[in-house]
Amino acid sequence: MSDVDAVIERATFDDAGLLPAIIQQWDTKEVLMLGYMNAEALRRTLTEGRVTFWSRSRQEFWRKGDTSGNVQYVKGAALDCDDDTLLVQVDQIGAACHTGARRCFDVDPLDPVIGDPVVGSPTT
Amino acid sequence: MSDVDAVIERATFDDAGLLPAIIQQWDTKEVLMLGYMNAEALRRTLTEGRVTFWSRSRQEFWRKGDTSGNVQYVKGAALDCDDDTLLVQVDQIGAACHTGARRCFDVDPLDPVIGDPVVGSPTT
Repeated sequence: MSDVDAVIERATFDDAGLLPAIIQQWDTKEVLMLGYMNAEALRRTLTEGRVTFWSRSRQEFWRKGDTSGNVQYVKGAALDCDDDTLLVQVDQIGAACHTGARRCFDVDPLDPVIGDPVVGSPTT
Repeated sequence: MSDVDAVIERATFDDAGLLPAIIQQWDTKEVLMLGYMNAEALRRTLTEGRVTFWSRSRQEFWRKGDTSGNVQYVKGAALDCDDDTLLVQVDQIGAACHTGARRCFDVDPLDPVIGDPVVGSPTT
């Protein structure tokens, strides 16, 4: 069994056959987006140097940047302790988000109550 | 409608009523873990200063640190462009992972083919 086959066997896909993949810029550590991979998308991501997702809405493979040029080059990857989430470090060219934002999380910042570890309880 | 109610209404939960939540250390930007929230867990996270998840395996709420002391204090939060993923910036006390590792992604690093943006194709 190849290393990649072993990873795919070890990974735990959900009932729809998908694994969530957190995409992080490798040097600045910004979290860029979350996508989903099936086994074949995971195989391509680990072997092709570019990130491939499975589109749940379109039910097809997609590689970030094929139409936009905003390519995600793979710099590293890890499964989590339960083997059910992937973290991919990438070099993201341009915007990661289809809105044109660098990060998909730039679009809708929230205003939560901030917790305070100094006093051990939330500040209000 | 309160701001929190508006966020919960805007958030897109999956067929199981869950939203994936990426947990990131606010200052170092390490990705610590991924958890899941239902609407009530999201409400608690946004209003209590500590991160609350819904456990899919135990079918119950859990707050990181209630048994381990490794509390996650909320420092910021954002929904993504599709409103179907949450990013929470936290101050993580101690280990985020139940294995004792700081990050759940420290446990199983992989060895992908590295993509090379300079030459525009994967290096092998």
